[in-house]
Amino acid sequence: MNLPARVACIGGGVIGAGWVARLIENGLDVRIFDSAPDARQSMQPVLENADRAYARLTMAQRPVKGQLQFCSSIADAVNGADWVIESVPERLDVKRSVYEAVEAHAPQDCIIASSTSGIMPTDLQQDMQHPERLIVAHPFNPVYLLPVVEVVGGKGTAAESIERAQAFYASLGMKPIQVKREIEAFVADRLLEAIWRESLWLIKDGICTTQELDDIVRFGFGLRYAQMGVFETYRIAGGEAGMRHFLAQFGPCLTWPWTKLMDVPEYNDELVDLIAGQSDAQSGHLDIRELERIRDDNLVAIMQALKANEWGAGLVLADYEKALFDAGARNTGAVDALDFSQPVQTTQRRIPPDWTDYNNHMNEARYLQCFGDATDAFLRMIGCDAEYIASGGSYFTAETHIRHLDEVGVNEPVNTQTQLIAGAGKKLHVFHSLYHGDGRLLATGEHLLIHVSLQTRAACEPSDAIVQKLAMITDHHARLPVPEGAGRFVGQPR
Amino acid sequence: MNLPARVACIGGGVIGAGWVARLIENGLDVRIFDSAPDARQSMQPVLENADRAYARLTMAQRPVKGQLQFCSSIADAVNGADWVIESVPERLDVKRSVYEAVEAHAPQDCIIASSTSGIMPTDLQQDMQHPERLIVAHPFNPVYLLPVVEVVGGKGTAAESIERAQAFYASLGMKPIQVKREIEAFVADRLLEAIWRESLWLIKDGICTTQELDDIVRFGFGLRYAQMGVFETYRIAGGEAGMRHFLAQFGPCLTWPWTKLMDVPEYNDELVDLIAGQSDAQSGHLDIRELERIRDDNLVAIMQALKANEWGAGLVLADYEKALFDAGARNTGAVDALDFSQPVQTTQRRIPPDWTDYNNHMNEARYLQCFGDATDAFLRMIGCDAEYIASGGSYFTAETHIRHLDEVGVNEPVNTQTQLIAGAGKKLHVFHSLYHGDGRLLATGEHLLIHVSLQTRAACEPSDAIVQKLAMITDHHARLPVPEGAGRFVGQPR
Repeated sequence: MNLPARVACIGGGVIGAGWVARLIENGLDVRIFDSAPDARQSMQPVLENADRAYARLTMAQRPVKGQLQFCSSIADAVNGADWVIESVPERLDVKRSVYEAVEAHAPQDCIIASSTSGIMPTDLQQDMQHPERLIVAHPFNPVYLLPVVEVVGGKGTAAESIERAQAFYASLGMKPIQVKREIEAFVADRLLEAIWRESLWLIKDGICTTQELDDIVRFGFGLRYAQMGVFETYRIAGGEAGMRHFLAQFGPCLTWPWTKLMDVPEYNDELVDLIAGQSDAQSGHLDIRELERIRDDNLVAIMQALKANEWGAGLVLADYEKALFDAGARNTGAVDALDFSQPVQTTQRRIPPDWTDYNNHMNEARYLQCFGDATDAFLRMIGCDAEYIASGGSYFTAETHIRHLDEVGVNEPVNTQTQLIAGAGKKLHVFHSLYHGDGRLLATGEHLLIHVSLQTRAACEPSDAIVQKLAMITDHHARLPVPEGAGRFVGQPR
Repeated sequence: MNLPARVACIGGGVIGAGWVARLIENGLDVRIFDSAPDARQSMQPVLENADRAYARLTMAQRPVKGQLQFCSSIADAVNGADWVIESVPERLDVKRSVYEAVEAHAPQDCIIASSTSGIMPTDLQQDMQHPERLIVAHPFNPVYLLPVVEVVGGKGTAAESIERAQAFYASLGMKPIQVKREIEAFVADRLLEAIWRESLWLIKDGICTTQELDDIVRFGFGLRYAQMGVFETYRIAGGEAGMRHFLAQFGPCLTWPWTKLMDVPEYNDELVDLIAGQSDAQSGHLDIRELERIRDDNLVAIMQALKANEWGAGLVLADYEKALFDAGARNTGAVDALDFSQPVQTTQRRIPPDWTDYNNHMNEARYLQCFGDATDAFLRMIGCDAEYIASGGSYFTAETHIRHLDEVGVNEPVNTQTQLIAGAGKKLHVFHSLYHGDGRLLATGEHLLIHVSLQTRAACEPSDAIVQKLAMITDHHARLPVPEGAGRFVGQPR
C-alpha cells in the first residue's frame, strides 16, 4: 500500500492548520485552500508552535520539511491529490458542497477525510459520486502532537479506505483508532461532552471555580488518564478481583442522583458480563499488582517530567522535594557535625525505570546525573545551597572524568561517597565513588568546578563561609589516600 | 500551627492503606484499626508499591519511615492521636458509629478526617459532640502518589480545622483543594461519574470496546488533562479570543442530543460571564500563544517520560522514532557514502526545556546525554544498529572525559561532530565536539567503548562488517589532527 504523497487540505482553522503542521513536519508537501483572506497569517502561529515542538519531540533525523502551497480554489488545491483533508465548519451543507468540488477535480482514487468532530460519515457521503472513499478522521488539538485520531467509516465507505487511513496516520506518528459503529460525536467527544456538561453545572451552581475544577483534574485523575483509560484504571481499583468486583461495588451508584446527568444504562448481569469480558481481553494478561506498578511508574515519570517543566503536578513535587532538602539541611545541622574522617555520603537512591537503555542497564548519561546530584549535595554541605545561589553565587562544572566499572539495573540501590581533592580559591576538585548497595564499586567521577557569579557568568571567589568549610574538609580529606583512578585520562593503561 | 505527629487510621482498604503508605513514607508513625482479620496481609502490597514508588519519586533524603502499629480497637488506635483518618465503607450509619467511638477516646482537639467520596460532611458530623473538627479529605487512588485531595467542611466545621488540613496535606506532598460549597460526591467524582455513565452507554450500545475507549482516552485528551484542566484546555481552543469565543462556538451544542446524559444548564449571558470571568482570573496572565507553548512542552515531556517506560503514548513515539531512524539509515545508505574526510555530524537538535537546571543552563548530565546520543548515532553508522543489538552484540562505554567549555540554554540549536580516534578489535575510542548552531564549541567528549556480548556481558570481537567499517573510517580520520583536549586528565594545566 503506497502512502499518500500529494495531500490537499481544505480549511485552515485550528484543526486544519494542525493537520498542515503535522504533514509538513513529516516531509509531505501540502496544497491548501481556505476561503478566509487572512488564512496564511492565522495559520502561522500553529506552524511555528509545531516547529518548536518537533525540535524537542525527537532527536531522530526527520525528513526535510514539506512545502506549503496556498491555492485560490478547491479545484487548484486538489488537482492531482491522493489525499484530501477537509476541516471546514461543522455544517453538513458546507461539507457536502466541498466534497462536490473535490470530486469534480481530484483523481478518483483520492481519499477524502473529514475532520468533523460530530457528523456521521454516512450523512457526509450521501450525495457523493464515490462515497467509498469518504472517511472521518477526527483528530484532537494540538493535532501535530496528540497521537489519537478516530477513524470512522459510513455505510458507503470501502474497507480499503479505512485500511489506507490506518497506515497513513500511523506513518505520521499517530495512533489511529477505528470506531467501528458510527454515532454522532463518535467516542472521545461523547466523553468530553459529558465532562463539559457536568463542569458547567459545577460552575453555574457555585460549587467551585474554573481554577479549582481544573486543579482537581490536573493534580488528580488527569494524571491517571494520561497513561490508562477509564476501564483499566477501575480494573485496578477493583483489586485482585478486578473489573467484576469494581462493578459490583459501584454499579448500584448508577441510580443515585449524584450528577445532574441522569439517563443511565440499566445495571444488570448482561452489562457486567460485557464489560468484565472486554476488560479481561484488554488487561487480563497483566495481574493487578503488575498493573499497579506500571501505573505508579508512569505517574512518577509524568510528575518528574512536569517538574522539569515547572508546571502542575510537577510543581507540587518540586515543593515537596524542597521541603525535604530543607529538612535534611536542618537535620544534619552544621557541616561541622558531619564525619569527614572518611569520604562523605552525598546521595542514596534506587535506579528509576526510565534511566536504563537498550543495553538493559543504566544509561551512561545517568552516571553523570548521579555524580551531578552528588556534587549538588556536597555543595549544599559547604553552604552553596538554594539561598546562596539566589544571592548570585554558584559553581559550574568545567571538566569531568568518569570510569564506568560495573553495570546497574532498574530499582537497584546505589549510594555515592565523595572525597574532596582540592578546594581553595575559585576551584573545587571532587572525586565521587558510586557504589551498589551490595558494596560493589560501579563508577567513579572526578570533577573540576569553578565558582562563578551568576550575574557575570565569570569566575569569582566564593563566600568566606564556603572558603572556611572547604578548608576544614580539605584538612580532613588531605589525609586520605588519593583515590584510584584520579588523574586518569581516557584510555590510559592501568 | 503544629503538624500532626500521632496519626490514627480507621479502615485499611485500598484508600485507607494508601493513606497509611503516604503517612509512613513521610516519617509519621501510624496506629491503625481495621475489623477485617486479614487487614495486615491485604495492606501489604499497597505498602510495598508505595515503598517502590517513593524510591523513584525523589532523591531528596526522606525522614526515616514511620512505624505502623495494628490495634485491636478504635479506642486503642485513637488514644492520644492528634489526627484520625477514617476510610471505612460508604455507609452513613457505619461512619457515624466510628466517630462516636473516636470521640469517646481521642483528645478533644484531634481532627477527624473522612475519606468519603460522596457523603456530605454536614451529614457526617450531625451527631458529633465536637462537629467543628470533622472534615472530609477525599484522596484518589493511588493515595500515596496522586497529589490532589478535596478538602470539604460541613455546616459545623471550624475554619481552623480546614486550615490545619491544608497545612497537613501539603506537608505530605499533596495538593489540597478546598471545595467551598459541599455537595454529594464533591467535584472530581461528579466529573468521573459523568465520564463513567457515558462510557457505560458506549460499551452497552456496542460503539466501541473497553480497550478502544481506553486508548481513545490515553492517547488523546488524557494527555491534556495531566497538565491542564477542562477550562484552560478550552480557553486555548478558543484561540486569541479565549473562553468567550469558545463558549460562543460550542455553547449551543448543549441542546444537541449527542450524549445520552441530557440534563444541561441553560446557555445564557449569565453563564458566559461567570465562566469567562473565572477563566480570565485563572489564565488571563498568560496569552494564548504562551499557553500553547506550555501545553506543547508538557505534552512532549509526558510522551517522552512514557516512552522511557515503554507504555501508552510513549510507545507511539518510540515507533515513530524507530521509523525515522530506519528511514534515515535507508536514506544515508551505506556508510561508505558518507564523507569521512572530516569529523562526521552525528546529532543535531535543540535543547529541551527540561534539560536545564538551577544555574539556568543545560545541566552537566545532559552534556553526556548529547555525547551518548552522538555515540549511538555513530554506532548506527558502523552497523551497530537495533538489528545488530538484537542479535546479541553491543558496545558499553568504559571511560569518559568531558570539557564543559561554554553554556547553552533552552531551545538553542546544537550539533555534534565526531572523530574516530581508534577503532580496532574490541576497543572504540571516539571524540565528540558539541557545537552551538552559531559555531561556538560548547563541550568536548572523549569516550572509550568496549564491544561486548549482551549474553555474557563480557568483552568480545565485533562482527566483520563492523571491523571493516571502522577500518575504513580510521583510514580517513587518522589523517586528521588529534583534537585539542584529547588525552587530558581532570585539572591538567593547559
